Amino acid sequence: MNSSEALVDMGSSRADLLLVNGMVLTLDPDGRRFDPGAVAILNGEIAAVGPAERLAADFRATRTLDVGGCVVLPGLINAHTHAAMTLFRGLADDLPLMEWLQQHIFPAEAKLTEDWVYWGTMLACAEMIRSGTTTFCDMYLFEHKVAEAARAAGMRAVVGEVLYDFPSPHYGPIENGLRFTESLIERWKEDPLIRIAVEPHAPYTCSPSLLTRCNDIALRHRVPLIIHLSENEAEVEQVLSRYGRRPVAHLEEIGLLGPHLVADHCVALDERDLELLGERGVHVVHNPESNMKLASGIAPVPKLLERGVNVALGTDGCASNNNLDLFGEMDTCAKLHKAATLDPTAMPAETVLRMATAGGARALGMGGRIGELSVGRLADLIVVDFRKPHLVPVYNPISHLVYAARSSDVRHAVIHGRLVMEDRRLLTMNVDEVMERVRYIARTIKP
Amino acid sequence: MNSSEALVDMGSSRADLLLVNGMVLTLDPDGRRFDPGAVAILNGEIAAVGPAERLAADFRATRTLDVGGCVVLPGLINAHTHAAMTLFRGLADDLPLMEWLQQHIFPAEAKLTEDWVYWGTMLACAEMIRSGTTTFCDMYLFEHKVAEAARAAGMRAVVGEVLYDFPSPHYGPIENGLRFTESLIERWKEDPLIRIAVEPHAPYTCSPSLLTRCNDIALRHRVPLIIHLSENEAEVEQVLSRYGRRPVAHLEEIGLLGPHLVADHCVALDERDLELLGERGVHVVHNPESNMKLASGIAPVPKLLERGVNVALGTDGCASNNNLDLFGEMDTCAKLHKAATLDPTAMPAETVLRMATAGGARALGMGGRIGELSVGRLADLIVVDFRKPHLVPVYNPISHLVYAARSSDVRHAVIHGRLVMEDRRLLTMNVDEVMERVRYIARTIKP
Repeated sequence: MNSSEALVDMGSSRADLLLVNGMVLTLDPDGRRFDPGAVAILNGEIAAVGPAERLAADFRATRTLDVGGCVVLPGLINAHTHAAMTLFRGLADDLPLMEWLQQHIFPAEAKLTEDWVYWGTMLACAEMIRSGTTTFCDMYLFEHKVAEAARAAGMRAVVGEVLYDFPSPHYGPIENGLRFTESLIERWKEDPLIRIAVEPHAPYTCSPSLLTRCNDIALRHRVPLIIHLSENEAEVEQVLSRYGRRPVAHLEEIGLLGPHLVADHCVALDERDLELLGERGVHVVHNPESNMKLASGIAPVPKLLERGVNVALGTDGCASNNNLDLFGEMDTCAKLHKAATLDPTAMPAETVLRMATAGGARALGMGGRIGELSVGRLADLIVVDFRKPHLVPVYNPISHLVYAARSSDVRHAVIHGRLVMEDRRLLTMNVDEVMERVRYIARTIKP
Repeated sequence: MNSSEALVDMGSSRADLLLVNGMVLTLDPDGRRFDPGAVAILNGEIAAVGPAERLAADFRATRTLDVGGCVVLPGLINAHTHAAMTLFRGLADDLPLMEWLQQHIFPAEAKLTEDWVYWGTMLACAEMIRSGTTTFCDMYLFEHKVAEAARAAGMRAVVGEVLYDFPSPHYGPIENGLRFTESLIERWKEDPLIRIAVEPHAPYTCSPSLLTRCNDIALRHRVPLIIHLSENEAEVEQVLSRYGRRPVAHLEEIGLLGPHLVADHCVALDERDLELLGERGVHVVHNPESNMKLASGIAPVPKLLERGVNVALGTDGCASNNNLDLFGEMDTCAKLHKAATLDPTAMPAETVLRMATAGGARALGMGGRIGELSVGRLADLIVVDFRKPHLVPVYNPISHLVYAARSSDVRHAVIHGRLVMEDRRLLTMNVDEVMERVRYIARTIKP
């Protein structure tokens, strides 16, 4: 057999990248698995998923990666971050909320610059890619730099400038903030990786008229509207005393609740709140570790799921977690609700893994594009190496991903068809430079 | 300068191993730190701890490791394990407790052999060393094999055969179990790494007379007495209905409570229980992740600490966690109690880190020997690499160890002065062989 015959034998379909011999968990609605399986990627999309032998025969790939002993699954989606807060990781912990905010976080944030946000976000992207996240949804200041950093890191991101009644250290008065948000939408509308959202901070920091204006912009541009909602009882009390309504009912009253709304936290909910979130098709992002660390409480996630609410998973910012590790977050999420409800069947592993994949995709308005491995979806996936003592033996790979794997077991990461990490080496940035830049900034934050 | 002069210049004191240029956290009562610091080790003990420059000048070492960019701290102590249950990792999850035990765990355990316990424990040791644990305390069947495996892996361990009223798959009738325990004490009494404990399973599986006999053996040989205690409300109900007393009061009544007793779990405690545990100087081992996963509840650890109870940290077995990772356990522990008490100042990072070091040492009767880095202590220590995106920047290394570091950041491990892991490579076993043995056993467990 000569070499041209060999090429024909190697398949007639073309792929940019072929991953073969891993256990492929599609996480599609039917939960299809292929073991040994393969994924073929072309032009940023998944061209085929199936048995390794068949795809190896069918495809002629520019690059082939043998991922034997590894599990291939959709990339994780971190549906709530303040990425640049990596700058404040471990700056202050274990303090009363107001002391932590007013004496440590706010003074540090007062010094924020574009440059800080860029490097803080680059560091966050490094950490997220290395821990299996391929998409994140961010709310912070100077979000144009977050978009630029995510783009440079090769990550998929939904970003939005935080909006509130008082002047912003970035844009000044709110009129500028709304204009800035619309300019971001315009600037990034054709980008394959970056999407913009409208992001009012919270019901207690935004007037009803600001919330209504944000809602209008989101609906007009068909982009997500993202807000912190009912994070703790103190917020509920504050909104109750100001408007005579709980935060969820308040948003209902002014017309914000709908399937375009992504509500972060949702810890302090009563039965009527649960009902409203369910009826209106609001997406909720659960941030268990941040809620625990800040002593906000435990969100009633099993009840939300019972009401049919789509729940995604997030880490929140690094100052209140203190990492961006969705593997740790999945483990905590699966266990926390068992303890809270005294029910060991609450939040099974697969439910949690789907929150961190398809749940996040739906919340961010990308339900048909990411979050599962099927033909035509965007090629965002990760490869987790199971050949480690803490992942032996394997009876159930999904149990392992949630309860036993660590983010450091992520071996390769692919975003939009591009290999962004190979054998734990980041291919899209000089990580030593990023760490050095952040160390330098940190010396200004805490001399 | 000729080479003999150089040797004199390099210091007059001899060390087997010198770690230099790291940030050394002694975790001694004064919380001394040296940065850059060094630790000198000779004959299995710590010969010196102090500034890097001084120790480098004072010591002539057989082996010197530059640990710049890393943090050196005492090895972690996993105070409650069933190590060989690595064999059942992920075998069954998210099930009602009785279904999980009776349909999955008990049938698998019925097949247990010496050989299985040996390889399951070797795998556990691989995982524990790789995740920063240098000492573990085990309760299971065929514990002579646990001792042998720990010895082969170079780990420090306290082991004890589980004792209960019904016949054991290992030793048969309880008389044999008590004799076996005493033979273990005799066999291992001079060993530098292995200590034996007397380990009655629980108040609901051991008659008062068995508990009294166990207590007598422990006191006579001056070894720890270790028991599961008040793990959940069901146990409390059962003991109440049988003896008319709650489990803690029951042990008080028959004379078991004292500073030689190590009580695992202690989730379901009332005020009188807390008082008794404090007054009698009982040591408690907290296993937050297992208690969460099995929906046992949340142990009132802040209240135990208020009463002056020494609390150590454990992972429990892999079937209910599903890993042996104390870094994850510390993070969960620090966060869980904040959510449970709605107090963000509960369980600060340093409190939790000390539970996992000095707390464990005291519980296991080795308070003066391990758990801190001071001259004369046994040289059990770990080196954690902070040059990672998720550990940048560094404002507070203790916050990072608890809230941000992952077990995979452990770079080197030293136990009894011996380097057992170097640059994440295990030096005491062939880990590929261990994984292959366990995979083989797993095919019998679940064909």
